[in-house]
Amino acid sequence: MTQWVYSFGDGAAEGTRDMKNLLGGKGANLAEMSSIGLPVPPGFTITTEMCGWYYDHGGRYPDTLDEQISKALSRIENSVGARFGDAENPLLVSVRSGARVSMPGMMDTVLNLGLNDKTVEGLAKRSGDPRFAWDSYRRFIQMYGDVVLGVAHHLFEEALENLKLDKGVDLDTDLDANDWRDLVEIYKQEVKTHLGRPFPQDPQEQLWGAISAVFGSWKIDRAKVYRRLHNIPEDWGTAVNVQAMVFGNMGETSATGVAFTRNPSTGERMIYGEFLINAQGEDVVAGIRTPQYLTREARENGNSAKPSMEEAMPEVFAQLKGVFQTLETHYRDMQDIEFTVQNGKLWMLQTRSGKRTANAALKIAVDMVAEGLITEEEAVMRVDPAALDQLLHPTLDPSAQRDVIAIGLPASPGAASGTVAFTADEAEARAKEGEAVILVRVETSPEDIHGMHAARGILTSRGGMTSHAAVVARGMGRACVSGAGSLRIDVKAGEMTVGGRTIYRGDTITIDGGTGEVMAGHVPTLKAELTGDFASLMEWADRYRTMAVRTNADTPHDTETARNFGAEGIGLCRTEHMFFEGDRIIAVRQMILAEDEEGRRRALDKLLPYQRQDFSEIFRIMRGLPVTIRLLDPPLHEFLPREEKEFSEVAMAMHVNAEHLRRRALDLTEANPMLGHRGCRLGIAYPEIYEMQARAIFEAALAVGEEFGATITPEIMVPLVATESELAFLRERIEAVAETVFEEKGQRLTYLVGSMIELPRAALTANEIARKADFFSFGTNDLTQTTFGISRDDAGGFLPLYVEHGIITRDPFVSIDQKGVGELVRIGAERGRETTPDLKLGICGEHGGDPDSITFCQSAGLDYVSCSPFRVPIARLAAAQAALKAGR
Amino acid sequence: MTQWVYSFGDGAAEGTRDMKNLLGGKGANLAEMSSIGLPVPPGFTITTEMCGWYYDHGGRYPDTLDEQISKALSRIENSVGARFGDAENPLLVSVRSGARVSMPGMMDTVLNLGLNDKTVEGLAKRSGDPRFAWDSYRRFIQMYGDVVLGVAHHLFEEALENLKLDKGVDLDTDLDANDWRDLVEIYKQEVKTHLGRPFPQDPQEQLWGAISAVFGSWKIDRAKVYRRLHNIPEDWGTAVNVQAMVFGNMGETSATGVAFTRNPSTGERMIYGEFLINAQGEDVVAGIRTPQYLTREARENGNSAKPSMEEAMPEVFAQLKGVFQTLETHYRDMQDIEFTVQNGKLWMLQTRSGKRTANAALKIAVDMVAEGLITEEEAVMRVDPAALDQLLHPTLDPSAQRDVIAIGLPASPGAASGTVAFTADEAEARAKEGEAVILVRVETSPEDIHGMHAARGILTSRGGMTSHAAVVARGMGRACVSGAGSLRIDVKAGEMTVGGRTIYRGDTITIDGGTGEVMAGHVPTLKAELTGDFASLMEWADRYRTMAVRTNADTPHDTETARNFGAEGIGLCRTEHMFFEGDRIIAVRQMILAEDEEGRRRALDKLLPYQRQDFSEIFRIMRGLPVTIRLLDPPLHEFLPREEKEFSEVAMAMHVNAEHLRRRALDLTEANPMLGHRGCRLGIAYPEIYEMQARAIFEAALAVGEEFGATITPEIMVPLVATESELAFLRERIEAVAETVFEEKGQRLTYLVGSMIELPRAALTANEIARKADFFSFGTNDLTQTTFGISRDDAGGFLPLYVEHGIITRDPFVSIDQKGVGELVRIGAERGRETTPDLKLGICGEHGGDPDSITFCQSAGLDYVSCSPFRVPIARLAAAQAALKAGR
Repeated sequence: MTQWVYSFGDGAAEGTRDMKNLLGGKGANLAEMSSIGLPVPPGFTITTEMCGWYYDHGGRYPDTLDEQISKALSRIENSVGARFGDAENPLLVSVRSGARVSMPGMMDTVLNLGLNDKTVEGLAKRSGDPRFAWDSYRRFIQMYGDVVLGVAHHLFEEALENLKLDKGVDLDTDLDANDWRDLVEIYKQEVKTHLGRPFPQDPQEQLWGAISAVFGSWKIDRAKVYRRLHNIPEDWGTAVNVQAMVFGNMGETSATGVAFTRNPSTGERMIYGEFLINAQGEDVVAGIRTPQYLTREARENGNSAKPSMEEAMPEVFAQLKGVFQTLETHYRDMQDIEFTVQNGKLWMLQTRSGKRTANAALKIAVDMVAEGLITEEEAVMRVDPAALDQLLHPTLDPSAQRDVIAIGLPASPGAASGTVAFTADEAEARAKEGEAVILVRVETSPEDIHGMHAARGILTSRGGMTSHAAVVARGMGRACVSGAGSLRIDVKAGEMTVGGRTIYRGDTITIDGGTGEVMAGHVPTLKAELTGDFASLMEWADRYRTMAVRTNADTPHDTETARNFGAEGIGLCRTEHMFFEGDRIIAVRQMILAEDEEGRRRALDKLLPYQRQDFSEIFRIMRGLPVTIRLLDPPLHEFLPREEKEFSEVAMAMHVNAEHLRRRALDLTEANPMLGHRGCRLGIAYPEIYEMQARAIFEAALAVGEEFGATITPEIMVPLVATESELAFLRERIEAVAETVFEEKGQRLTYLVGSMIELPRAALTANEIARKADFFSFGTNDLTQTTFGISRDDAGGFLPLYVEHGIITRDPFVSIDQKGVGELVRIGAERGRETTPDLKLGICGEHGGDPDSITFCQSAGLDYVSCSPFRVPIARLAAAQAALKAGR
Repeated sequence: MTQWVYSFGDGAAEGTRDMKNLLGGKGANLAEMSSIGLPVPPGFTITTEMCGWYYDHGGRYPDTLDEQISKALSRIENSVGARFGDAENPLLVSVRSGARVSMPGMMDTVLNLGLNDKTVEGLAKRSGDPRFAWDSYRRFIQMYGDVVLGVAHHLFEEALENLKLDKGVDLDTDLDANDWRDLVEIYKQEVKTHLGRPFPQDPQEQLWGAISAVFGSWKIDRAKVYRRLHNIPEDWGTAVNVQAMVFGNMGETSATGVAFTRNPSTGERMIYGEFLINAQGEDVVAGIRTPQYLTREARENGNSAKPSMEEAMPEVFAQLKGVFQTLETHYRDMQDIEFTVQNGKLWMLQTRSGKRTANAALKIAVDMVAEGLITEEEAVMRVDPAALDQLLHPTLDPSAQRDVIAIGLPASPGAASGTVAFTADEAEARAKEGEAVILVRVETSPEDIHGMHAARGILTSRGGMTSHAAVVARGMGRACVSGAGSLRIDVKAGEMTVGGRTIYRGDTITIDGGTGEVMAGHVPTLKAELTGDFASLMEWADRYRTMAVRTNADTPHDTETARNFGAEGIGLCRTEHMFFEGDRIIAVRQMILAEDEEGRRRALDKLLPYQRQDFSEIFRIMRGLPVTIRLLDPPLHEFLPREEKEFSEVAMAMHVNAEHLRRRALDLTEANPMLGHRGCRLGIAYPEIYEMQARAIFEAALAVGEEFGATITPEIMVPLVATESELAFLRERIEAVAETVFEEKGQRLTYLVGSMIELPRAALTANEIARKADFFSFGTNDLTQTTFGISRDDAGGFLPLYVEHGIITRDPFVSIDQKGVGELVRIGAERGRETTPDLKLGICGEHGGDPDSITFCQSAGLDYVSCSPFRVPIARLAAAQAALKAGR
């Protein structure tokens, strides 16, 4: 016979904390607390399997359930010494839902179940407090009426308000037993009016109604949406917890409270929480009365006149302190606890791992290792890598005032204040004057790079989480809020308006790239702290991870930053940004406008020394760590002016005919540049471009190698490969350049030529491409675009709606889509290694810094992940967790 | 010991015609002819395996080869009664290459090998014809010098010209034995000057030199390029054929000729060919003398005074006629034959399947079935489906004069003459006046549809084989030449210039969509013939194929056309073209400009009757055959004006503010529309659009079903699905509309809801999508774009270069890329059928009409292909061939 019901209480339990899948989180922990001898009101849990059965059988129950519940109820009765429905000495119970994970939207709680017109008298008599008894009864009707019977709760609230008006009183506490009794009558009438039948008087009927209501709430819309958004399977179901009532509102020796075993904001080891004398749990939350501190120290720090629990109930407090210690030692984690004191006796109602800030998570994990409570591996597993982001960037002082004027997307973390500049040039000029600047643009383009670099933060009115602004800002570690659509930016006038306010060029604003908030004026920020606990955790993470962590960095500054964050190499050095700097863009444009190969080569000759210099600096900073350089990727039109008015300006600077420039730009225009003439297609059409880049790489590597007396092994990466033949064609030319340079310099070096795998075809034919590739780097940004057929520049029009409708659960540009894009990564890795068993595999898309994606990369067998500099620590931690999970 | 050499001759042979892989095509057929007792000059074939060995061993030969060649050579000597290198009675041989398939670029032939300063005297004596002997020697030096020794052939030609000038003669025939002897000296001197050593006198050295030259020519650039373009593996290699010389130039009883056993232009059963008395093979080809007819009838029809072979050599002709009969019966196909008559004796030099026109292929295949020579299945296999295209469209009269002014891409077959119109409106207006019109545009867009429909042909200066113009023209069966880049079109001035000539609006031009030619003036065309042989072949094809053939048709006219061509349903009815017609576009634009759902619904209500009408007409024409209707696919901005000047025009017509219209258009602009807000993403953002379309489909299907007293089972297809959840979301809404309509009408019908599989993610997650889909249709156009990451609109910039460099062998938009795109189709089919074993699978991309792609579809297990109406017969034949191949 299936066991549907698990009892607990009196220092014993049928369940354990490991049975969360069956008993739900709350039920499992109640059982556990009971087992280890903590004072838990006796009760029982109806399993999540029962929930599944219930739905599979059209809302019916198996015959055996009745019997099992009866037995469990008897056990409670025996323990408490009261009987369910007994008019003299009634047992009252609470009924609560409890799924595997806590889930808003589900039915929460019904208290005081078992009260009716008769038992209420018994309760009054036995407690000697009729006011308490009738108050309890009316609370029960209200809760049960609302959540089980579906009578709108505002009806009950209005009735109470009316009663108070009638009585001429302001506060609930001014009502006496008779008033509550009157209210009970009114409530019962309300229920009858709306239900067409009286409020159920039979406690058994009440109990079964509440149980069904809990199961029923598993499938209400709000719960469904929540599950879809959080990827919680429909078939998990919820458990039901039925537990003897204890009362914190039975007078001055009763109380109720919540506590954390450590400070959830800072992680400090202290008792942290609050309580209320003579109150029920809901009163603490409702905020009608101000709760009191638990410890004397906290009361003194808080300048409160009301006594702390430590002072008011010293004995119970001492007992509670002991329970805290027991629970932390037992669970080996900081606990979030609910308790009630009834007539001086302590009862534990809930314990669970406490939510905490990133700072606290870090401190608690490191402290617990020091305390010998957990191992290093466990500490590594305890900190959410994504939360580290908060620690790596300046954050807004939480105590500061904020004047929020708009909200955009939290595109690149960190908070920054500065004066507004509407063009990249202005941002650069102001920064040179020593101003902190926020660059504000409708959207950014590669030509804004210098301004973005000069700015502290970037704010755009258009573009998503993976727009140019967002990607570049994350790469640079600049705060960025993108797509703040309510801003109306007028660059010419040098102003923007939002919600009727106008911000002028030079005004100060603050952006929070972690929340997307845009604020007027200066808001003070707190600096990041990267030593101490942070350093310890990172050290442990490095010890346990198996994947290397590289960075995506294009400039010496980014490279330096990434090294400081612990990057073990560069996984992606894009060369296109280099083409925009200073005078180079003129040579680049001359190259594009040249009529023939010879003209292109002349222009490229001018670029060669710059490129060599770029690569030399990066090789120097990386001092022999691997550096993967991606050859030119974007379509050539990105280097030509876009705006009509720029043409004559640029033409003048270049000494060419504006009409010619315009025509060439038009010629190069593409319907879908993402799928156009870019990547290795450029290298095939104009081999001289890649030849110049290859030469610059080889010359720089030889020169820097000589400086160090060491060998540099450059890794040359060919973008947008779709066929083996493309890579073969280009590899042959790169090898020829290498031989020429080696001959000229009289020195050789080892180098790798590899392929981006960023098109579905490349993944599918990876066995062929591997014949010509020394390594693969999965470019999951473009792979996501092509696999989904979604342009990330245009996704803003529908992806948010997709998330809203639950059609996708996460933006696939943020966290890798494992079923589609991930499947191609798996296929690519497998097939590549069919050809070359030890083929080096990495990932260099935005996903390289996303913890879930990193876990995926581990499972796909990749050798390294590469991410923007500021995400390197996140990746190190996530990679460690992935390795530990995989090793289990 | 490996057998490297295979002998033939004297009614026997070591090889057979089935050994083409080993002996090459020529060698296998020489062996075969020899075996069946035809008179073949004795010889031997060195195998293609030897070619591989030769390259694997750095151009060396195995020791055993020498011995095998010696033996084979002795056999020839014994047969002919002459000895190789014998000064009295020398054996002369020819050396020819011969790969599995004939391959231009390879070394062709060396004749008369074995001649030197001594043997030439022997030949003179034995033949009694010194002029013949010295002429033969100088021919040998010339050929051998050119192809084996690498002495430029123009040097020999110049020397001959100089000699003739010296002698004061015009024709070769005016030179006598002494003159040829002088020329031999000059030639030998020429060789010595350029080679630094004398012309080889040793016949063995000559022979080995020729053999190595044949093997060496396998890897010359021209041959490599040819192989890459025709997908011929490098490792096939070539064979070498060495054969005793026979001479057609030994006087009036000698001759040489070529013949087909049937007329290769018309397929008529007749002896077709020409011959020359006293000539060698090369003379027939060289065209110095006019060849004579073979039969008297042909001579009479040709009004020739020179006797036919039938008249001049009646006995040999009779023998030849017998050989033709033997060969046709033996090979069961029309043969292309070379022969030589030496002193009244017939020698067969080559036979192979003859190349033929599409018309001839059809007639020969059908005739041979009637003659009992081949089976229906064989007939089906004999006709190249791609060649059928020629038969389905009007073709240019081959005898007409052509004034070609430009060449573009052969984008849609058929030839058409008409007056030039530069706008769709003008094309329509002229067509209404009864003119045949050619619409000339830089490129076309959906707004040009009415003009394209009105025109006989379409010519564009931009865009590839899968540009809008090309795709739509193929769909409509209009001739189209696209991407004729040399045209400079000035729409405003109403003229275009090309090569210094100007064509004005209203001038007549002719385009040939089968070749890409653009001609000035009118060129007469021949009409297509779809009955008789064509109908027979189609009937047989239908009998043997297993895949159904549907059509892609959006209009009643196309639907009608496709039915006439034998389409068994509609695989893709696009609904977007319908949105442009007449006044509808106004309602469509109102829908797009509406501020809210209600506004959109109002506009959609106006479209509903039109859509219902569209679908009703199509259902009526298809009379119960399946019709798959794809819901709206393109991004909304395609329905708004593009050109600045159109905005006010359109705004006026719509009674809206031009600025508003412009702003909305700007809002909708996308960086990569192909990857943007289109397909089912529209249906999710604006469910009311798909709801209107679904309603129109159900209402039309019910109404037409009632007319016929039959049930229509519409198939509703959702485009651009990437996730199961998208299809689930839309399916639910379509089902709701169905229920509403069924309730309103009091009737029900069965319908299918299926998914396009046109994104890599859809193929990869086909097992999930299949849960919500009644059928899949692989949209291989978009699947190619996303799998390769290539926009077909922009591919013109690099794909031609890719083909040129041999990086890809065929445009993947024309023939499916089996390794990449095809792999996804296989994965999609497999995974889809994991969920639903009998899931209906089809293809509706352009590939549905490409024979190689159809073969692929058969292997992938698809149930049907769908293609443009004019390709339906091609698809029927290709599907039959695929089924027969698969069944073998």
